[in-house]
Amino acid sequence: MTEHTASGQDIRIALDVMGADKGVGEVLDGVGRAYASGLKAKISLHGREDEISSTLNGLGLSDKPISIAHADDVITMNDKPTEALRRGKKSSMWSAMASVKSGDAHAAVSSGNTGALMAMGVLQLRKIEGIDRPAISCIWPTLRGRCVVLDVGANVEATAKQLVQFAIMGEAYFRALTEKEKPSVSLLNVGSEDLKGHDLIRTAATILKEADHEMNFTGFVEGNGISLGEADVVVTDGFTGNVSLKTAEGTARLIGSWLKEALTSNIVSKMGALLVKPSLEEMRAKMNPSNSNGAPLLGLNGLVIKSHGGSDAEGVAAAIKTAETLANHPFQDEIRRTVAKVEARAVAKHLPLEEPAEAAAE
Amino acid sequence: MTEHTASGQDIRIALDVMGADKGVGEVLDGVGRAYASGLKAKISLHGREDEISSTLNGLGLSDKPISIAHADDVITMNDKPTEALRRGKKSSMWSAMASVKSGDAHAAVSSGNTGALMAMGVLQLRKIEGIDRPAISCIWPTLRGRCVVLDVGANVEATAKQLVQFAIMGEAYFRALTEKEKPSVSLLNVGSEDLKGHDLIRTAATILKEADHEMNFTGFVEGNGISLGEADVVVTDGFTGNVSLKTAEGTARLIGSWLKEALTSNIVSKMGALLVKPSLEEMRAKMNPSNSNGAPLLGLNGLVIKSHGGSDAEGVAAAIKTAETLANHPFQDEIRRTVAKVEARAVAKHLPLEEPAEAAAE
Repeated sequence: MTEHTASGQDIRIALDVMGADKGVGEVLDGVGRAYASGLKAKISLHGREDEISSTLNGLGLSDKPISIAHADDVITMNDKPTEALRRGKKSSMWSAMASVKSGDAHAAVSSGNTGALMAMGVLQLRKIEGIDRPAISCIWPTLRGRCVVLDVGANVEATAKQLVQFAIMGEAYFRALTEKEKPSVSLLNVGSEDLKGHDLIRTAATILKEADHEMNFTGFVEGNGISLGEADVVVTDGFTGNVSLKTAEGTARLIGSWLKEALTSNIVSKMGALLVKPSLEEMRAKMNPSNSNGAPLLGLNGLVIKSHGGSDAEGVAAAIKTAETLANHPFQDEIRRTVAKVEARAVAKHLPLEEPAEAAAE
Repeated sequence: MTEHTASGQDIRIALDVMGADKGVGEVLDGVGRAYASGLKAKISLHGREDEISSTLNGLGLSDKPISIAHADDVITMNDKPTEALRRGKKSSMWSAMASVKSGDAHAAVSSGNTGALMAMGVLQLRKIEGIDRPAISCIWPTLRGRCVVLDVGANVEATAKQLVQFAIMGEAYFRALTEKEKPSVSLLNVGSEDLKGHDLIRTAATILKEADHEMNFTGFVEGNGISLGEADVVVTDGFTGNVSLKTAEGTARLIGSWLKEALTSNIVSKMGALLVKPSLEEMRAKMNPSNSNGAPLLGLNGLVIKSHGGSDAEGVAAAIKTAETLANHPFQDEIRRTVAKVEARAVAKHLPLEEPAEAAAE
């Protein structure tokens, strides 16, 4: 499989138009917004042609480099990954991914079922050589800007070796996304002292310290360190990452609700609220998950961007633009090279690379 | 060991005055505030007598039922639990705990080193019969009031059996704290469908469903469900619980910082901020961790309340008042009876109670 590098209008994105919670109209609206905010890439829309063209007609996008690739079936949010693989070869999701495999597209973007997308990605594009398990990342707003957290749900468990691979993938992705040459990478743990946490996290830390000299590995970070911006890349297993991400979402909603209550609690507060409203709108924009929507399935031999199932048009546009950015900075080769190098060094130094997760019980 | 029930002014609390981040003055100030807000219990102050009496003199508490129990040594935040056990028998922490053991006090309260406190608790008071490992809980503000989350740091791993025990302990504690007869209890997981998550969490869910008919067990809750108030008691292992708690703290700080920025970003916002300030102060009070300070070490044969190391006087007062509340509703016997009953039923039904955590790998 060759790596596709391209830029600007040469980039081709395959967009799975079906299977999103808010429907085809919202996804196509997102396409319009992406172009309105400067997107140059060509987009092929994968899904039911009649539904797509009738919706597209009203959007005034006829001068944009958009094509339609018909696909009969739709993978729903309720389909199990195994079912999606068995019955889904005529689906829009399969079709978009096949475009990446054939080289027709540099990236696939889908707001559909995550498990199905991952299963199809592994089957069609295969995993990068040396990667045990792909991971799903998220972009997390912080006091200092943003960071990448992974895994946030692809695997409920991870061995030390897999955590090392997640670290390498997260670093390459963050660099491609932000062009920061040496992003800092930390392992999520329950304490910053070396003695705390699971054995397998300590093992992963040792391997990263001893075998990846090029990485700016900064040790452990605790849960509060994510939002405080203590690391550019935060590495954890998919269970902890998912709980952590959703805890942050719940906390933000709780505080948002309290804030609303406070600003409407009496007439004086309501007057004050009118004055602070514009500033609060800017703050709300920072908190809006749509702005950071669109995360690559890391570890696949090709670029597949997962857009949140409930994304609005703004979110879809963000995911499409992320696809364009990352297509300009392909990082699959870099991941493969780094993993090979780190594992060779770990073996040479007799580091416990192959220790299974089960042996790490405290 | 007998269980001590008492009420109002008959309750005796042993307060470890040393080892808190903000010093003896802040802790004693907390004692004053606790009495000012209606505390009736007697308090014995454990620590260096000269330091305590000289500080106490200026606080105008001479009419309160306060006594001093001299102890030479102090456990510091840097002492390892094993060191604390070996060298700490003359410490204020040991002395406060010994009062509970002897029956001189109904509860011990300490803002000192958590690991040392837990180790001393297990050694002096012993674990409740049937409990494998004690747990640390926290009180978490939610959209619907508050919930209890445990374990938040005593054990980095938990077997299915231990999760079941945490659920039973959390339920008894929540009932004692709030007098709600049937608190809802959920297991923290990555998805609300039965198929998701670790095997051991599913096993714990099966045991709670099949063997604890009296519990209002409501299945799984995701990370966002904690702050949304979807359960009264949220059960997880100490690693996930600690990461989740600290993630919420970090998120709250991030949003707080953005809010401050928004309210001072221009002259109009600053004017508005003056008007909304009183309402925001009320909101800040809800978010103030001091209000929910003071969590029992669950699973010990006696009441030991851990106050946050960095607590201010308000926080210390809250912990002391929690000690008084819980001393009025002893729940150690209830935990012992429920654990015995649930385990007997699980054995009778051939539920996989003894499955070790390692066997639960995906």
